[in-house]
This record gives sequence, structure tokens and C-alpha cells, in this order.
Amino acid sequence: VKMRNPPVNSLSLEFLTELLISLEKLENDKTFRGIIITSDCPGIFSAGLDLLEMYGRDPAHYAEYWKAVQELWLRVYLSSLVVISAINGVSPAGGCLLSLSCDYRVLANNPKYAIGLNETLLGIIAPFWFKDMLVNTIGHRAAERALQLGLLFPPADALQVGIVDQVVPEDQVQSTSRSVMAQWLAIPDHARQLTKNLVRKPTADRLLQQRDADIQNFVRFISRDSIQKSLHVYLEKLKEKKG
Amino acid sequence: VKMRNPPVNSLSLEFLTELLISLEKLENDKTFRGIIITSDCPGIFSAGLDLLEMYGRDPAHYAEYWKAVQELWLRVYLSSLVVISAINGVSPAGGCLLSLSCDYRVLANNPKYAIGLNETLLGIIAPFWFKDMLVNTIGHRAAERALQLGLLFPPADALQVGIVDQVVPEDQVQSTSRSVMAQWLAIPDHARQLTKNLVRKPTADRLLQQRDADIQNFVRFISRDSIQKSLHVYLEKLKEKKG
Amino acid sequence: VKMRNPPVNSLSLEFLTELLISLEKLENDKTFRGIIITSDCPGIFSAGLDLLEMYGRDPAHYAEYWKAVQELWLRVYLSSLVVISAINGVSPAGGCLLSLSCDYRVLANNPKYAIGLNETLLGIIAPFWFKDMLVNTIGHRAAERALQLGLLFPPADALQVGIVDQVVPEDQVQSTSRSVMAQWLAIPDHARQLTKNLVRKPTADRLLQQRDADIQNFVRFISRDSIQKSLHVYLEKLKEKKG
Repeated sequence: VKMRNPPVNSLSLEFLTELLISLEKLENDKTFRGIIITSDCPGIFSAGLDLLEMYGRDPAHYAEYWKAVQELWLRVYLSSLVVISAINGVSPAGGCLLSLSCDYRVLANNPKYAIGLNETLLGIIAPFWFKDMLVNTIGHRAAERALQLGLLFPPADALQVGIVDQVVPEDQVQSTSRSVMAQWLAIPDHARQLTKNLVRKPTADRLLQQRDADIQNFVRFISRDSIQKSLHVYLEKLKEKKG
Repeated sequence: VKMRNPPVNSLSLEFLTELLISLEKLENDKTFRGIIITSDCPGIFSAGLDLLEMYGRDPAHYAEYWKAVQELWLRVYLSSLVVISAINGVSPAGGCLLSLSCDYRVLANNPKYAIGLNETLLGIIAPFWFKDMLVNTIGHRAAERALQLGLLFPPADALQVGIVDQVVPEDQVQSTSRSVMAQWLAIPDHARQLTKNLVRKPTADRLLQQRDADIQNFVRFISRDSIQKSLHVYLEKLKEKKG
Repeated sequence: VKMRNPPVNSLSLEFLTELLISLEKLENDKTFRGIIITSDCPGIFSAGLDLLEMYGRDPAHYAEYWKAVQELWLRVYLSSLVVISAINGVSPAGGCLLSLSCDYRVLANNPKYAIGLNETLLGIIAPFWFKDMLVNTIGHRAAERALQLGLLFPPADALQVGIVDQVVPEDQVQSTSRSVMAQWLAIPDHARQLTKNLVRKPTADRLLQQRDADIQNFVRFISRDSIQKSLHVYLEKLKEKKG
């Protein structure tokens, strides 16, 4: 799967919906046993959630958007396919979450390609299931610090803290991902799928048991004046940068 | 305790029962404060659960067998004695679980002596409490990967991922284990036992609260045609190897 | 905050109460956004809980004392301020817990300045929330071993196991702590506070849901003849040392 939503693969509602449909097709097509998620946008794996979907809209829109974000996570995290992330660009916030939901993460060794949950830097907070994913991946202590400081890890740090599994030269990201895929596909599908579910179900269940409450939390939080103001400031900065 | 069930110390129902009786005696004999579990079979710590107990038998047998496996785990994991594993051979699957249940693991530095939960390679899956043990020992991320891929770690990797505590030359496994034992016995028994229980009870309780359901799950799973077929294929391969 | 309860900053009931009042003031004073906890007693960060509060008193006193210990932990652990520990001395048991409750730990590189939960060495046991703090910080396996053996980690080991975040030359503990503070204060307060709460609430809730039961447990345990005897032996040893 090559993600293509120029210029930065931000996860807009439309793009999320497209991704979900593609993933669902692959999931149900018995000829596919694994997928590699990578980016078609130079230097950017995914810029994460689309702030424009969270700014200046009405509560119904926020709710619809958040439901799609939940859906994407559950789809990738509980996929019966082997899902490998070939991270060929920067991947903050939601882009990082997408990678964390995969079975394996290969990151291109480019100092610009930082990865992490940097929500606090924008004045917002990661929901509990983003937090659970990071705790599961790098441990409680490292996650606590990274989440509070909104740390974005460049490749060497990312490997050391364990937020990615492997760092390789940029031109080997795809080939390495294919080799890793071969290793995972050597395992009998049925046993691998049941084992994956065994390990991941408790984490997924925490959201499944309170999806609506989580949506309402998000809508309430994002609708706050102070948060809308933070997003406004941030979006203005982005505009200036581009300008 | 020297395990001796030639040729590979597989945990047959009979051998499990013997082990349980020995361990119970030691537990109740006030002259013992610690035990070292090691193998009397050259090159093999324990081959793990005995597939012959899981293949071609009736549900009542599967249930009896699984109950004994649970019993051994609970006995070792919650033992009030200091339990050290002197791993002088390969220890896949159930052999690995036995080690993980101890207080400390010393592995002989022989590249053949791999250790891990390799259930998926046989087309079967580890139960949730095997998974819990691995997560507790090497962390969530490393456990997730190791369980899905059925990884068997040779000594250097085993030490790095933390599935064993120490790797020493093969002829020093027993003496090192005795030194470690001396360190653990220097702690007042009562405080050590209560602390051990404090840390381990939540994990043990997850099984204790659903022992019957776990037995029924196992019986249902192992009785499936597809699983019996996988085991058949595997057992035939083993026979060929020996022949 | 400079802790000053000579000679060893032991957390007596009186000193705990003073600390709590100071912390509460800082918490409510909007001009403060972060605090650095350090010691004014040479070579000792804090000797931990005051054994004299646990020996030869009546149950009501034990209950009052334990409530104050819980209170201090909850106050520091859930503080909305950035709390950094500048550990300029040895910090066993309760001294270690105090550090573990902070957002970041800087330890002076002096081989005498060991840190850890060494309760078993005194014949007593750490309560479940001390255990939770250590598991959260250094992982389940390392915590299990450290708690059973009552390990006190000198600086190099402390850094490696992750019980502290940074080890620096003794004369740089304060300046390093201030630099770290600047990094944490660069994050918007509101987002950082909500994120901290998100990560820490589940651990704090385990105590909040059973504070009274935890107090009763402590009173029952500490009132036992065998425990009072252990404490007596230990306190006599301390006297001899001083004499």
C-alpha cells in the first residue's frame, strides 16, 4: 500500500476512508497474506491526523472524523495480514500511531525522519489508546517521558528506545521490508493470526469497550475554545512556513 | 532437581506428575529453602510439552493433561522456595515456560542451546499465561514479535532480549547457579516470599480465575481436525529425523 | 525544595507533614510551574520512611503515619507541576519511592549513592504501589528481581537498569536538573498536565480505590511480633553503628 495524499499524507477524513476501503479489500482477498505500508510523498511518511478536520467544524463532523480514526487503528492493529511499515519519511503523531499498529517497523536512516507522538507540542493530548500503543512498544517509563515532552525520535534514538525495529539506509527500506515480510510469511498463517490476536486483543478491547465515550471525549476536548485557539495558532504558523 | 525423562525430557503426563510430587515434597520440607532445576539429558533442558499427549487421544485425556501442565506452572511460579534454572540444553516451548517460571535463569553458552516459545512453528498457539510470562520477562513488544515468529533465541540473543539473566561457559552453569542461589538465600525468607507473591499473584490469578475455561479452550483447540493434522505432520517429521 | 530533616532526611510523620504543606503551597501558587526536589543533608537524599514511626507505637499511630505516606506519594506522583529529583545522596526504600514519583531523576555519580527498594533486607515488604512504581520504571522482570533481593543500585547500574534517567558528576546535579527543567517547561502546561494524568491515573487509582484497606494491611503487618522483632534488631544495629 503506497499512501498518496499530497503533499504530506495527512489523514483527512476522505483519505482515511480510502485507506480503510483499500485495507478491507486486501483483508478479504485470500490471495494477500501481508502488506507493506509506505509513502509516495517524498520525505513524509504521514503528517498524521489532519488538523483541518479538527478545526472550525461542528461536533457531528468531529465525531465522524474520530470514528474513522478509531476504525483505521482497529483495522490495522487487528489485521489478520502481516503488516509492515516501511517508514520513508517523517512520521509524527497519527503517522507514528499508524506505524505502531503494524507488526514491524523499518525506518530509513535519514536524520530528518523523526518519529513520535508529539501531540503536546501542539497543545493537544494523545488519547489513551495512542498512549497504550506507545507503552506497549517502548515500555511505561520511556512512553511517559516521550508523551509528556512530545518527543520526536531521529533514527538512531528511535532504534535505541525501540519505537522502530530496524534502521536501514534510505535506498534499502523497501527491500528490507520485503525480506522481513518473507520471514513473517514463513510462519503458518493460522497460528500467527491467533497468536497476534491473543497478544493484541486486551489492548484493542480497552477501546472497543468504550468507543462512544472516547468519541464524546474527543468532541468535547477538541471543541474547547482553548484547544481551537491552540490549533489556530499552530495552523497559522504552518501557513507562514509555507508562505 | 535433575530432570530425567530420556531422551529429551519431554513433559509427559507421567513425568509432570513425578515432577509435581517431587516439588511438593521439597516445598513442604522445611530443610529446603531453594532448588536448582537442571537436566540430566545431554544437550536438552526440556523439549517441552509432550506432543504424544496431545495427539490422537480423547478429550478427557487432553483435559487431564492440561490440568497437570497448569499445575506445574502454578507450583513453580508461586513456589515459596528460591527456584533457579540451570539451563544446560535446548529449551523450546514448555521447556522455556518452565525456565520463565523460575526466579533466575542461567544459560550455558552453547550456540545450540536456543530458548523460546516456538509454538507457532508447530502450527499451534501458546495459551495466554505463556504469553503473560514472556511479556513479563522481555516486555510487550519483544514478546509480541517472538511469539508470532516462534523465535528460539541462541545464548547471545537470549541474554540481550532478557529471556535469560546470565550466560556462562557450559562447565560453569551449575557452579554459577549455586552462587546465585547463595545471593538469593541471603535475603530473609519471609520478606522474600511475601514480595515474590506480591509481584506474581496478579499474573497467577489470571489463570486461577479461569482454570476450567482454559482447560476447555485447550481441549477444543487441540481436538480440531486441522490442529491434529498439523501435529501429525510434525510428529512424522520428527520420526524421519530420528530414522 | 530542599529537604532538611537532619541527619538523614528520614520521612518522619512531622517531616512528611511539613513536606506535604510545602508541596501543596507550591501546587496552588500559580507562579510556580515546576519544582526540583533535592537534599540539604550531605551524602543522603533521604533515608526513607522513619522506622521509629513503625516501631513500638500503637495501631492508631501506624494508621496515621501510613496515611501520610500515601498522601505524599499521591501528591508528588499526580502533581500538576514538573517535578524533578536531583538525587545528591543515597536513597533507599522510601527515599527511592520519592524519586520514582517524580518526572525525571538526575543522580550524582558517587559510588556511595545507591538507590533502590531494599525493604526485604530489613525483613519487611514494599506495598503494592511501591512495586507498581518500580515495575513502571524498570519493567516487570528487573523489578521482580530487584524487589526480592532488595537491590540498591550504584549510579552506573542505576542508569543501566533505568531507575534513574541520568547520572552526572556530583557538582553538576543541580545545574543539570535546571537544564532538564527548562526542557520540560518548554511544553504547554495544559497539554503536559493532561498527558501526565492520562499516563499516571491508572496506577494512582489502584491505591485510591483501596486506601483504607491498604492502611489496614500496613497496620496489621507492622504490628506483628515477628516484624517488630525484625525492626528491633535492625534499629539496634543502627545504634551500634552510630555508637
